Amino acid sequence: MHNQRTDEYGGSVENRVRLVRELIEETKDAIGDTCAVAVRMAADDGTGTPEQPVSEERREMFSILAELPDLWDINIYDYEHEMGVSRFVPEASLENTMHYVKSITSKPVVTVGRFTSPDTMVSQVRRGIVDFIGAARPSIADPFLPRKIDEGRAQDIRECIGCNICYTGDSLSVPIRCTQNPTMGEEWRRGWHPERIQPKSSDATVLVVGAGPAGLEATRALGQRGYNVMLAEASKELGGRVAQECRLPGLAEWGRVADYRVQQIQTMPNVDVYLDNHLNADDALSVGAEHIVTATGSKWRADGYGRYHSRPCLDLGPAEQVFTPDDIFMGRVPQGKALLFDDDHYYMGSVLAEALVAQGVEVCFVTPENLVSAWGLMTDEQYQAQQRLIELGVQIITAHGLDKFDGSDARLSCVYSERTRVVEADAVVLVTTRIPVDALYREITGKLESEAPESAPTLHKIGDCDAPAIIAAAVYAGHRYARELGTDMEHSDVVRQDKLFDPD
Amino acid sequence: MHNQRTDEYGGSVENRVRLVRELIEETKDAIGDTCAVAVRMAADDGTGTPEQPVSEERREMFSILAELPDLWDINIYDYEHEMGVSRFVPEASLENTMHYVKSITSKPVVTVGRFTSPDTMVSQVRRGIVDFIGAARPSIADPFLPRKIDEGRAQDIRECIGCNICYTGDSLSVPIRCTQNPTMGEEWRRGWHPERIQPKSSDATVLVVGAGPAGLEATRALGQRGYNVMLAEASKELGGRVAQECRLPGLAEWGRVADYRVQQIQTMPNVDVYLDNHLNADDALSVGAEHIVTATGSKWRADGYGRYHSRPCLDLGPAEQVFTPDDIFMGRVPQGKALLFDDDHYYMGSVLAEALVAQGVEVCFVTPENLVSAWGLMTDEQYQAQQRLIELGVQIITAHGLDKFDGSDARLSCVYSERTRVVEADAVVLVTTRIPVDALYREITGKLESEAPESAPTLHKIGDCDAPAIIAAAVYAGHRYARELGTDMEHSDVVRQDKLFDPD
Repeated sequence: MHNQRTDEYGGSVENRVRLVRELIEETKDAIGDTCAVAVRMAADDGTGTPEQPVSEERREMFSILAELPDLWDINIYDYEHEMGVSRFVPEASLENTMHYVKSITSKPVVTVGRFTSPDTMVSQVRRGIVDFIGAARPSIADPFLPRKIDEGRAQDIRECIGCNICYTGDSLSVPIRCTQNPTMGEEWRRGWHPERIQPKSSDATVLVVGAGPAGLEATRALGQRGYNVMLAEASKELGGRVAQECRLPGLAEWGRVADYRVQQIQTMPNVDVYLDNHLNADDALSVGAEHIVTATGSKWRADGYGRYHSRPCLDLGPAEQVFTPDDIFMGRVPQGKALLFDDDHYYMGSVLAEALVAQGVEVCFVTPENLVSAWGLMTDEQYQAQQRLIELGVQIITAHGLDKFDGSDARLSCVYSERTRVVEADAVVLVTTRIPVDALYREITGKLESEAPESAPTLHKIGDCDAPAIIAAAVYAGHRYARELGTDMEHSDVVRQDKLFDPD
Repeated sequence: MHNQRTDEYGGSVENRVRLVRELIEETKDAIGDTCAVAVRMAADDGTGTPEQPVSEERREMFSILAELPDLWDINIYDYEHEMGVSRFVPEASLENTMHYVKSITSKPVVTVGRFTSPDTMVSQVRRGIVDFIGAARPSIADPFLPRKIDEGRAQDIRECIGCNICYTGDSLSVPIRCTQNPTMGEEWRRGWHPERIQPKSSDATVLVVGAGPAGLEATRALGQRGYNVMLAEASKELGGRVAQECRLPGLAEWGRVADYRVQQIQTMPNVDVYLDNHLNADDALSVGAEHIVTATGSKWRADGYGRYHSRPCLDLGPAEQVFTPDDIFMGRVPQGKALLFDDDHYYMGSVLAEALVAQGVEVCFVTPENLVSAWGLMTDEQYQAQQRLIELGVQIITAHGLDKFDGSDARLSCVYSERTRVVEADAVVLVTTRIPVDALYREITGKLESEAPESAPTLHKIGDCDAPAIIAAAVYAGHRYARELGTDMEHSDVVRQDKLFDPD
């Protein structure tokens, strides 16, 4: 409805579509039969309703243009839906808006929509929704997706989890990263092929402690290299933080970070997995591994320390009324009215608010940022995160820090002024920062230093137990450890830079 | 206060300063006498008060380190102050915090602080505050600043206005621009030297209509090239929008955009300036110029159209209760309670709110953004803008659009949900978007087309009357017009790209 022209390019549908028509026709005229002309156009114009997502005018426009291009590349008006994260937008959900296009044209039709399952892709083709499948994020997660489908290797697909970490590279003007595919963006710089990896350089055994994203990926890639790997996990399930987080509202697909790796590891005879296995330093040193790597994760701080408080905050009330995300993962949930203090600014605060509301907790969401889940701007999910909390009736207080909680009242401070306000609450939930769970690493380090055994194993730490960060960073750290073990790249930060800007 | 170590790097001042001391000493040891070692350190640690900006501990730290480096490069803890815009931070205002450093060390001391006036610089050196002057932004505005001071040409200095447009390139990962110096960032790509310009290519006369930033810079640069220039301005003063905006709270320094150019033009015998001069198309065509360029600016829309309303909004109440920035520039100010709707998101909304409060108006600031002056994040002034409005008692409603005003009530809609709210107001001030004032350009175009005179002048439009944008863009457009007139670069978007990445 932006077109308000009154000349031959405005008014009637024929006029409003004239510009696109002329562009296609003149392009065709100019190039003749030398190549095909594809046209990307949104199936809707943003004026629809959930019941009738496409306006009559939009259908008419497609009817007029139907046979002009050689290929229709169909997207939708709402980019935040098209590019949506899995928390808010299901796979292949453009279908409801764009399915009619094929009935209007005889030309082939393609669409995107974060297709991740081969079954979904096949279903859309068979049902005549599209002629072929557009897949950007799924190809980032697995560049060999088409080949794996072709070869019937569905179990080998690293399925996109829809976290949009790939998109943050665009947002931040930094190289692309992918939670599922740690080689993304490192194919040339570090020479990492997404499927191939150099064989082991010795017959050594590696002990990996901790089966979260870092430990699982290290195990998988070390196993692929042919090393003997022992993976020890203290809990009764594999996955670490993703096993916990994928149970939160909307994050089910994140479980694929573990699923893919567990599936791969299960087929490797050189990998042994030990669940419910609590190792101390003596245990770890006694298994006879030449290499030990700890991937023991992190835990959320309960002392308020974070961006807002540069040292532990001493006035956070009775411990039984103070909660962290870890408490909630373990089923320890506040009662009554909870003040959730989000000093993390990514997804965890708003997801937990949603989870608490679902469990009957009245939530007041407080953040020193000006938005709910401000870092979600980088993954294009901020709008939906804030919208969700508003819809759920969560009270939102932005631009305020939590200074004090006495068990019934919380005092908040405006980040722009000296103003304070008091909010009643039965509990506070602190989503601030995490600290490494690195006791085992320190303990082994101590033993190796004090006892200096003759055949000491190498020792490293990876992932959150080294530096708490996003899941993609943990997978990357696990992959890098495995990739570089026993090579001259170990501990090296030198990457390929020669000829970086050479046009040849 | 971030250092909470308990080893030899924490606790006492000696321990807390140990890391820096060792870094300096080891650097000196490593390089010997081959080069000097400069150390940048903040004069304060953020724990001070306005009366006593520097803690005793910080002074002690400087005493311990005093003679170790060869040069002290002093900044301050608060980067938003150090890097502050002129609206909130006066020139050379680091002095109050850092002046004590020279009394502690015998080594030379340098500091930054947006020094723009040679008098201020000399004063600080003479009074023993610093030994020499650090100038980043002033050198962007005028790379020949030191030479001009050296040669006694103070009147030729393009003095930094402290708008921080230079900083937006960093923020946005795009090439640097400068409001005062249009050649900044184009020295290589377009071959623009900040001081030198190619001589005129003909004896033509150029008529420049409009003496705002674009018209003044076009006139100045055309004059420098040797062209005969007639500059016609409809009002009684030179400067256009900067003449108006520099009267707003905090923006006085922006007047330098006009001042520098007017000073330069005044010395040019080949430039004639006509004030209070209203030209119509016949007038413009009758002066006999070979080239006409309109730089007639823009005006603020009064119909609500902008980012939030994609077409004019019809429900904005009685015209006498609706105001735009242009109204306020002309002294037409609302009475009682005004709802200021900022759909522009840069400085104008918050500056006008401040101006209205100073005139006794009660202001409610409404924006669809989540912050006051959100684009001020790019110039590092957002925090101060929001802080200022909070301090002034302005009611701030973020994440809401203005849908309707009936003369006493305004209806606002939440941008995240279906929620609406009503705010009482006696007037609305619309800070939305601007439209080009291009009637003269269109009128001349019409004459040239219909009458097709034999010796028709060339006709161009530049600056806001072509495309309303920031002041830097208008100055750039004026410079580019002047630079390219009569050259083969005219109308060309081809810039130098060869060897862009060649290390030779």
